[in-house]
Parts: sequence; structure tokens; C-alpha cells
Amino acid sequence: MGRGSKAIDSNRLQLFIFFIVFTAEALVTAKARLLYQTKPNPADAVATARWLVSHNSWGVLRNVVSFSDGLPGGGRGIPYFYLTALDPTPRNALKDARSSLTISEFPIGSCGRTDPENPTCAKLTLTGKLKLVDIKSKEAEFAKNALFSKHAEMKGWPNDHNFQFFKLDIENLFLIDWFGGPKPLTVAQYLKPRM
Amino acid sequence: MGRGSKAIDSNRLQLFIFFIVFTAEALVTAKARLLYQTKPNPADAVATARWLVSHNSWGVLRNVVSFSDGLPGGGRGIPYFYLTALDPTPRNALKDARSSLTISEFPIGSCGRTDPENPTCAKLTLTGKLKLVDIKSKEAEFAKNALFSKHAEMKGWPNDHNFQFFKLDIENLFLIDWFGGPKPLTVAQYLKPRM
Repeated sequence: MGRGSKAIDSNRLQLFIFFIVFTAEALVTAKARLLYQTKPNPADAVATARWLVSHNSWGVLRNVVSFSDGLPGGGRGIPYFYLTALDPTPRNALKDARSSLTISEFPIGSCGRTDPENPTCAKLTLTGKLKLVDIKSKEAEFAKNALFSKHAEMKGWPNDHNFQFFKLDIENLFLIDWFGGPKPLTVAQYLKPRM
Repeated sequence: MGRGSKAIDSNRLQLFIFFIVFTAEALVTAKARLLYQTKPNPADAVATARWLVSHNSWGVLRNVVSFSDGLPGGGRGIPYFYLTALDPTPRNALKDARSSLTISEFPIGSCGRTDPENPTCAKLTLTGKLKLVDIKSKEAEFAKNALFSKHAEMKGWPNDHNFQFFKLDIENLFLIDWFGGPKPLTVAQYLKPRM
């Protein structure tokens, strides 16, 4: 093999790398655009808040927690959690249930390169009381399906850690999405059945 | 064009789509592996906490906030913020400075497909007091460079929103990384110069 064929190989490699990077970037942009299209209009605060809760799967409630409000596409707006008594979060909640869950749009991907603090990248804080869901209730069955469908590995979490289902009884909502301060949004509006 | 050439076109398209998906997945896996390699050993709580603060750029402090602890690769461990008085977070901090910042490893990408609540996907809560940084101080210059290097769009945020630099004076650290409960970690250990 002479110098010529090495140069061709090198060119081919460069072209290949360029193609891979270009493809990956195009895919990331396409995904962001798709998610952007599915994000509700900022004028619709109810739809935006419900979209954020249904499309994100984790937030901060005293610590980083995973949550789910229903099967994919079938969310009811109420966040359910699967927490172990080994974590101080549910232990503290049994003493003082007052809690807030903060969720960012950023991990969903639809903010693209916009900064997480930018008001056009939505953020929602749900304030209320963290409550244990009675394991024998129908609601526990709903919580289990909601959580295990979005967080498959939870099915395998160790039995001896005493994981239990919790929910946030929402009392207040604080939504930032777009400019102009927090959006007026009541709990009744947020929880009403969608059309 | 006959049926044969259409079938070939369809096969080519399938191959092309398979190649794109395969390439994208390989890139994502490679990135996660690279980040996993740079993540410190879970036995080293100080290095893990400092890595988490330096590699993530946003968390929850009452609401979703962006932060930075220094220039890329030159973090000092203290989170700085650029907040507007139009946001209730700094307004409330002037009344009661007690604050906690919770950061997840998940957005960094090194958790891969591991659930955000899984203890092997690190999470850190820094508790302390949110304090205004005197704009005329050297520390304000450091905060500005720290923030604007990691959050480029902040440079263009509107002057009339009265953005100011804040920092978290850390009083306590709560790190979950791996099994076995929170890691023992003092503020002095966390802030001491790295070797």
C-alpha cells in the first residue's frame, strides 16, 4: 500500500466521523423539535403543567425522587412515589407531611440549548402533603402501574427495604413558563379532566 | 422503475435507518462510559461531591436554578448563582437566608439507564445560607466568570431585571452515592484544596 491509499483511508475516516457527528446532531435537534412541538402553548398553563408532570419522571422533594402520575399518555396529574423507609424523606413526612416537589422541563430535552434558569424553560413546584397510599386500596394499584411502567427497575428493588407508595396531595402550584412571572393556576383547574 | 427497484430502495432505507439508530445508540453509550470513567470512586465522598458540583450546572434551590462553582476544571466547590429580584427566591433569601441546593447526577449522563432514584445515581444536598455577593468584591468577579463561562446566555440577560450574584455558604452536606446510606462528609473536607 502506498501513500496515496493511506491518504484516501484518512479522508474516508474523516468523512465517516463527520457523517456520524452530523447524524447525531441532527437526531438531537429533531428530538428537541419534536418535543417542542408537543409542548403546549405557554398561554395554556393547565396543559403546560400537566404536560410537564406527565413527561418528566423525576424531581426534587427534599431529595432527588422519581415519580409518575400514570401510565404513559394516561396521567392524572397527581405524582406518586416509591420510597423506602431507609431514606429520611418518607420518615420525615410521617412527622411533618408538608412537602414540595420541583420539576424542571430541562431533562425532557425540549429546552434545547436554552439555559435551565431561563423562564422559557418551564419549571413547576407542587406544594402539598406527602401521604402514604394504603397498599390495599385501588389507588395503590394505580400508583404501582404508574410507577413501574415508567421506572421499570423499581420492580426489582429489594423487598427488605420496605418500599411503599406515597402521593403528593397538591395544595398549591407555582409554574414558571415564559416571561411575565408565575402563571395563575389553581389546583382545581390543574386536576380537572382534560377535554 | 419496477417493483424490484422499489424493494431495493426500501431495503436501503431500512439499512440506513438501522445504521443511524445504531450509531446514535453507540455514541450515547460511549458518552455514558466516558463520563462513568471520570466519575470518582464511590469510596471517595469528597471527590464525588466536588465532581458532582463541578459537572452539573443546575439544581433545585426553592426553584430550578443554574449555578457554577468555577471555570470548567477550576471549581472551588462553592455554588454561585445569578438571580433576579423578580424571582421570589432571592427576595425570600433576604428575609430568611436558610436554603438548600439539591443536585442530581442524572442530567450529567453518567447514570446511563439507571433510575434517578437509584442510590448508585448520586445526589447531593448542600444546606446553608444564601448570601448576596458584594458586586465590588473580587469574589463577584470570580462568580461572574464562573457563571458566564458555563451559562453563556446569562451575559445577555436584561439589565433592567436587576440580576445579582449570590452564593451558598455551605453548612452541611448530604451525599447519596452507592448503597449503605449517606456518606460521611464534612464541610471542611469538602472545601479543602484538592491534591
